[in-house]
Amino acid sequence: MTNARQFELRDDVTVELVKASASDADVIWSARVSTQGERSLEYLDADPERSEGLIRFLMRDRHSVPLEHSVFTFYLEAPIFVTRQILKHRISSISEHSGRYSELTGAFYIPSRERKLVQVGKTGDYNFVDGTDEQYVLTLHNLETAYQAAWDSYTNMLNLGISKEVARVCMPVAAYSSMYITVNARSLMNFLSLRKIDERSKYPTHPQREIEMVAEKMENIFAEKMPIVYKYFNEFGRVAP
Amino acid sequence: MTNARQFELRDDVTVELVKASASDADVIWSARVSTQGERSLEYLDADPERSEGLIRFLMRDRHSVPLEHSVFTFYLEAPIFVTRQILKHRISSISEHSGRYSELTGAFYIPSRERKLVQVGKTGDYNFVDGTDEQYVLTLHNLETAYQAAWDSYTNMLNLGISKEVARVCMPVAAYSSMYITVNARSLMNFLSLRKIDERSKYPTHPQREIEMVAEKMENIFAEKMPIVYKYFNEFGRVAP
Amino acid sequence: MTNARQFELRDDVTVELVKASASDADVIWSARVSTQGERSLEYLDADPERSEGLIRFLMRDRHSVPLEHSVFTFYLEAPIFVTRQILKHRISSISEHSGRYSELTGAFYIPSRERKLVQVGKTGDYNFVDGTDEQYVLTLHNLETAYQAAWDSYTNMLNLGISKEVARVCMPVAAYSSMYITVNARSLMNFLSLRKIDERSKYPTHPQREIEMVAEKMENIFAEKMPIVYKYFNEFGRVAP
Amino acid sequence: MTNARQFELRDDVTVELVKASASDADVIWSARVSTQGERSLEYLDADPERSEGLIRFLMRDRHSVPLEHSVFTFYLEAPIFVTRQILKHRISSISEHSGRYSELTGAFYIPSRERKLVQVGKTGDYNFVDGTDEQYVLTLHNLETAYQAAWDSYTNMLNLGISKEVARVCMPVAAYSSMYITVNARSLMNFLSLRKIDERSKYPTHPQREIEMVAEKMENIFAEKMPIVYKYFNEFGRVAP
Repeated sequence: MTNARQFELRDDVTVELVKASASDADVIWSARVSTQGERSLEYLDADPERSEGLIRFLMRDRHSVPLEHSVFTFYLEAPIFVTRQILKHRISSISEHSGRYSELTGAFYIPSRERKLVQVGKTGDYNFVDGTDEQYVLTLHNLETAYQAAWDSYTNMLNLGISKEVARVCMPVAAYSSMYITVNARSLMNFLSLRKIDERSKYPTHPQREIEMVAEKMENIFAEKMPIVYKYFNEFGRVAP
Repeated sequence: MTNARQFELRDDVTVELVKASASDADVIWSARVSTQGERSLEYLDADPERSEGLIRFLMRDRHSVPLEHSVFTFYLEAPIFVTRQILKHRISSISEHSGRYSELTGAFYIPSRERKLVQVGKTGDYNFVDGTDEQYVLTLHNLETAYQAAWDSYTNMLNLGISKEVARVCMPVAAYSSMYITVNARSLMNFLSLRKIDERSKYPTHPQREIEMVAEKMENIFAEKMPIVYKYFNEFGRVAP
Repeated sequence: MTNARQFELRDDVTVELVKASASDADVIWSARVSTQGERSLEYLDADPERSEGLIRFLMRDRHSVPLEHSVFTFYLEAPIFVTRQILKHRISSISEHSGRYSELTGAFYIPSRERKLVQVGKTGDYNFVDGTDEQYVLTLHNLETAYQAAWDSYTNMLNLGISKEVARVCMPVAAYSSMYITVNARSLMNFLSLRKIDERSKYPTHPQREIEMVAEKMENIFAEKMPIVYKYFNEFGRVAP
Repeated sequence: MTNARQFELRDDVTVELVKASASDADVIWSARVSTQGERSLEYLDADPERSEGLIRFLMRDRHSVPLEHSVFTFYLEAPIFVTRQILKHRISSISEHSGRYSELTGAFYIPSRERKLVQVGKTGDYNFVDGTDEQYVLTLHNLETAYQAAWDSYTNMLNLGISKEVARVCMPVAAYSSMYITVNARSLMNFLSLRKIDERSKYPTHPQREIEMVAEKMENIFAEKMPIVYKYFNEFGRVAP
């Protein structure tokens, strides 16, 4: 019986780099073609540190296309309410697990104790603050009660012979999904600018904490692969070029 | 107390045309510019029926850009599991209700008795058949049990002072969302070719029934606004140009 | 004989509004759906001036999607070197005249006396200044000589029975083309931010004068159709949201 | 004096692979995530030949997103009338040489003797046939005359102190440009389906010969990097999924 399987609670997200064709050097030859034509080919293996000034200029003045030749593919596990938000960024290629084609694994998101629970202020002007221990305990209790009911209904319906695509509609947006995301450096910086709070940002952003957890992990990978671009992304206010 | 509010069960979707700047005539002048340049302006008010042959030619040979100057904006109410699928079509502009910024209304999807519940066959080669009355009744029972638990947990958490964006994570993907979708005729035909089963289709498609309900309503509006294009869309296998 | 036809010299560009489905009001209902769901429908006919504060907020904090539901279609006549630049903005739908399918009309661009001819400084840091009368006269002379040679060769080859698509390769990038461009307000603002010099711009831009002439005419139409959005586009540094 | 520099005549195009992150294996793991979730990670290093049936299925039924995780960057030298056509394919990232920022090299396109010169039939239904030797010789003569006039005017204006961006407007669309193009496998197949004539194509296409020369070279590289995908691209009518 499917019903016997237990569901799992998680308070984290998974982000792994599957592959990347991305480096600071990509920005050099692709920018140089506009002024040097075929001689830009000489920069294919050049040391990008010697051209740091060019990268600084491109990022400062928001020249964008040279940032599009570097591409990353990430593997991601996150709750559906996060993957929905990711889908709204249209300039990427996303292959996602489907609850129509295979059974959901039964992993659900719960906030960790560090996750601020209470919103103070109103739409357009608000902050989040920690909740009390009681609020946290009751939140977990309410979430788990709902998850248990959803999981029971889901497995009951599967056992009754109902199709997966119908049975899964009772599952919460806290259920984990998995996906591959292929995105270029320009689009990735746009994602980071909107989904990660950073005091260096020129424009305010209010991402939900859980998508920010995804953005933080992607940002670490981006910083490692393209350190010079990353440096000036921050220096010039984290505005995607 | 928020808790006192009852939730609602629905088995339908809403699709309304908010506005359209779309006609068969658009296809004429935009196609004619490639061969006639400025003289294409003479066709701005021309009768598209007199140029039916041109539209037929464009649709048959898959000339695509003339189909992009006609634009529709729809208002939609559908369950989240449908709106997630819509988001995967990247070439449209979508403004959606957010459970972060206001309370969810508590409408949940249940299948109507006509909705086939049981899948026969396996991934890549399957059909759907009606379930028994018992399967239908038990499906509704299991869904409502899960919805009730989710709704209770959601309203409990709101009453505890927990933020909307945390409380809503227990809500099922069957919860209704609302959105505006702006899409051009080419992208709309791509959507219809993938999300509506039709025997005239050259390529097989297996949309979930609930997104097909959305596609059917959009198709009716499209057929009314651009009847000649629609005719040849079907005649040539429902392949978006 | 084709050869007898004279070519024409122009120093201007044509931009006409073919149709628009665009208003400040579009921004209101599409933004309100995120916080008000179905009640946003009440704003379909609302007076946008009463919601100016909302538009100001969206433009200031760079909320982008509500700007995508307003769509413009322009008719344009401009030299090929301008239409090439327009093609680099990928988020629009462009139907252009083709020299493969019909004969070119033989209109060529020459700078007006107001067009600054001389560049002072170097790539990345330069200005344009007026040339002398002698420089202007010699520029016109050199351009006309080249145009006459291209036109003679083009018409000679057509008269020889050579295909249009081969004959036209000798034609200069100063030859005029015509096109329809459909673009939403967000993409249009991006175009204006990059292709029109304005002291209110937060980021520097260095468009070629001839594409700026196109941008100026589009900007006038945009300002008329969406005056409140336009006001805050300028107030917040002409950065597309 | 710039004027002393000679211009060059070419009848070919250059296409080089700068880098690729592309393989048949990419299609396997990205397709498997929809049915297997995290277990798709086991296929990262799997032999794609063992999953040929899956690739066949995806290509036959036009499942598209798994083709978007493989990315190619090409270096290209081609006449402007070809690069303009490439720009019309919007789903790629293109960094191109600019005649505003550096002097043009003075390479111009002439047809080789194999290039068919004469069009028989009319728009929408035509063929190309070889011209006579006389037609070929006169075509070269007319082209070279126009190129010489353009080159003389261009270098004259530069010597007069006129800016590069003004002087270059007399240059023909036959002048060579250089660019980097980053494109994923799905978009590349779309390009190949439209820009290369092949008897296996389900839909007719009529590319200009010179862009077909580019497509042929890209196709060879694609076939080498993703041989299984390429096999079924052809088997199922060269329709991009």
